Amino acid sequence: MEDADYRVRGFRSWAVEAGLKKHGGLDLGLIHSEVPAAAAGVFTTNKVKAAPILVSQEHITSGRARAILANAGNANACTGPRGLADARRSAAAIAGALGAAPEEVLVASTGVIGLPLDVGRIETAVPELVRGLSDRGLPCFAEAVMTTDRFAKLSRFEANGGGADYRIAGTAKGAGMIMPDMATMLCFVLTDIALPRVELEKALYRAADLTFNRITVDGDTSTNDTVMVLANGLAGNRPLSPPELEEFREGLRSVMESLALMMVRDGEGATKVVCVRVRGALGREDALKAARAVANSALVKTACYGQDPNWGRIMAAVGRSGADMAEDLVSISVDDVMIVEAGTGKGEEAERRAASRMRNDRFTLTVDLHLGEAEEEVFTCDLTEDYVRINAGYRT
Amino acid sequence: MEDADYRVRGFRSWAVEAGLKKHGGLDLGLIHSEVPAAAAGVFTTNKVKAAPILVSQEHITSGRARAILANAGNANACTGPRGLADARRSAAAIAGALGAAPEEVLVASTGVIGLPLDVGRIETAVPELVRGLSDRGLPCFAEAVMTTDRFAKLSRFEANGGGADYRIAGTAKGAGMIMPDMATMLCFVLTDIALPRVELEKALYRAADLTFNRITVDGDTSTNDTVMVLANGLAGNRPLSPPELEEFREGLRSVMESLALMMVRDGEGATKVVCVRVRGALGREDALKAARAVANSALVKTACYGQDPNWGRIMAAVGRSGADMAEDLVSISVDDVMIVEAGTGKGEEAERRAASRMRNDRFTLTVDLHLGEAEEEVFTCDLTEDYVRINAGYRT
Repeated sequence: MEDADYRVRGFRSWAVEAGLKKHGGLDLGLIHSEVPAAAAGVFTTNKVKAAPILVSQEHITSGRARAILANAGNANACTGPRGLADARRSAAAIAGALGAAPEEVLVASTGVIGLPLDVGRIETAVPELVRGLSDRGLPCFAEAVMTTDRFAKLSRFEANGGGADYRIAGTAKGAGMIMPDMATMLCFVLTDIALPRVELEKALYRAADLTFNRITVDGDTSTNDTVMVLANGLAGNRPLSPPELEEFREGLRSVMESLALMMVRDGEGATKVVCVRVRGALGREDALKAARAVANSALVKTACYGQDPNWGRIMAAVGRSGADMAEDLVSISVDDVMIVEAGTGKGEEAERRAASRMRNDRFTLTVDLHLGEAEEEVFTCDLTEDYVRINAGYRT
Repeated sequence: MEDADYRVRGFRSWAVEAGLKKHGGLDLGLIHSEVPAAAAGVFTTNKVKAAPILVSQEHITSGRARAILANAGNANACTGPRGLADARRSAAAIAGALGAAPEEVLVASTGVIGLPLDVGRIETAVPELVRGLSDRGLPCFAEAVMTTDRFAKLSRFEANGGGADYRIAGTAKGAGMIMPDMATMLCFVLTDIALPRVELEKALYRAADLTFNRITVDGDTSTNDTVMVLANGLAGNRPLSPPELEEFREGLRSVMESLALMMVRDGEGATKVVCVRVRGALGREDALKAARAVANSALVKTACYGQDPNWGRIMAAVGRSGADMAEDLVSISVDDVMIVEAGTGKGEEAERRAASRMRNDRFTLTVDLHLGEAEEEVFTCDLTEDYVRINAGYRT
């Protein structure tokens, strides 16, 4: 991994080992913008919200931020008033060291739920963390937010708009507990573009809807998920033209999409990335309902692991999804191999060919409802013995 | 198992090996009532309904039946018009052999989806099946409908009502793909009580709601689930008084509850039965939503397997369930050990004691929302490597 790739003008990052992870390693990361940046965020929909979520939601209302502090090892969730105080103390410690206001610091945490955060360790680590800040530090930050992740996740994009070159760089964490509508994942995106906050927010919401809200590992949703984007304007561009703005939005989407797919590939215990595409639905909502039901089905996911084109399980998942469907219109394919047409199986030869596609690391299950025009995709992974092993042993 | 226990006046059962199961064994079962019986049924809510479901729904509209034919090895689902014709042919073959009308025969199937049913094998097996009918044949029938089940499921009840002794005996099949609102499970209940059909239906609907609709193994829902009850009236009782009727309803519920719990205990790969009880909810619907979210959470289920009182996962599941809740009011217990009070953990000693409760085969997770009076329970099992192994290899 070439560090230089992820540099964005005016942003410096770093990470240290503060002693928050049970088995050691980098666990506390910081991103700093040398000037106040426009800031936008998307946060968990879970009614149980971790303390850092509450604090960041409060701080981001100003639309500006200078720093992001993120830790792994402890989610600071279900920690009550003390957790909230701890999150504020962390933000204040960083603000003090950087000469910023506490409200300019956003915070994010991931790890075990329900244990008090050892904020003393964070305060102790702050000087070293700030001293280390470097324009090449984003990969180091990325490593610090990993929990059960098997690899660090980084992605980038660059283009020209408003007369200036600009960059987008993003990093994310997440490997389990991932599910549509934002689940345990953290994602931080930095860009030097100059953009009104309202445009930044619009671009972020659209990109999140098309990327992180389209992936699933196990149907669970977390108390801590966070996507934040900071735009510090140091590219010095003039206002973007409509096509330039669209290019930025696509760039942001592509960075977030790469990160989302890395999460699925890194799904706990996963060996395969599966795209579930539902087309021919009466509406987008139906397409999404059906795609999610298939993508979240434990039976479909184990069949993917077993490389078994067991389309009855796909059909049953669509049938219970609530989407409008008529069984005798449905066709199902694995990549280019159709295994069901007009509701009935195409036979053993087709299934044999489909099984060979399923031996690949990545394949697409397409369900065509043949009722309308709407189409949606959701990305999932297979369900393996290792998922169980990882999650049965995560805390103990 | 004592065969005699499951005798009910006027009913005879049997099963044979018709060659429908890939690896052999009993796979075709028949129940016969010597007189037409009042009949009621509950069928899958999946939009994809297997052919036997469609045929039985049609036949049961008369409110009377003489026989139930059930097979394992092939679900006769997603088999189109041919599947429907095959289900009708099966019913007709039994009707012919028993001297009944085809409309008096109910059918049920379980097994692989999407393969045509070899109805020729069923027709060939019918004479032997009918010849074998015996008042002690229900355990044999129970064995024939097993698929991934590790043990046959039978339950019974007897009481006196309307001046006569009567019995209820039931059998069920199901070990995976089980989820609230009826999922792949078959259940057949026989009674010799004389009861108007409308009372039989009412009792069945209530019992199904309180039993099979309260269990979950993996959140999937099948195309074939069926609960049928036949009441042939041979007990010769007078009309039941209101308390006697209530006793019958409770008896039916208890038979179905035993069978439902056997299914959870036999959940694919399961090592533990877990009761998830949510109390203090604002309404029953909220209590049920929250209980189901916890019971279906892959993370909670793996934590149960790992004997880890990881209450953060329980809290997160409640938080995303859609139920009204306030984090700082919630308490959580494992059996008698409270591990969360007013939204925060009670510490390591409490968790150690809770972990010891989780080493048992069966325990209860109680979530008290402290908002209202409503309470609901759902039964689930743990998620293990064996679940994955069984389902990744089921067909192939």
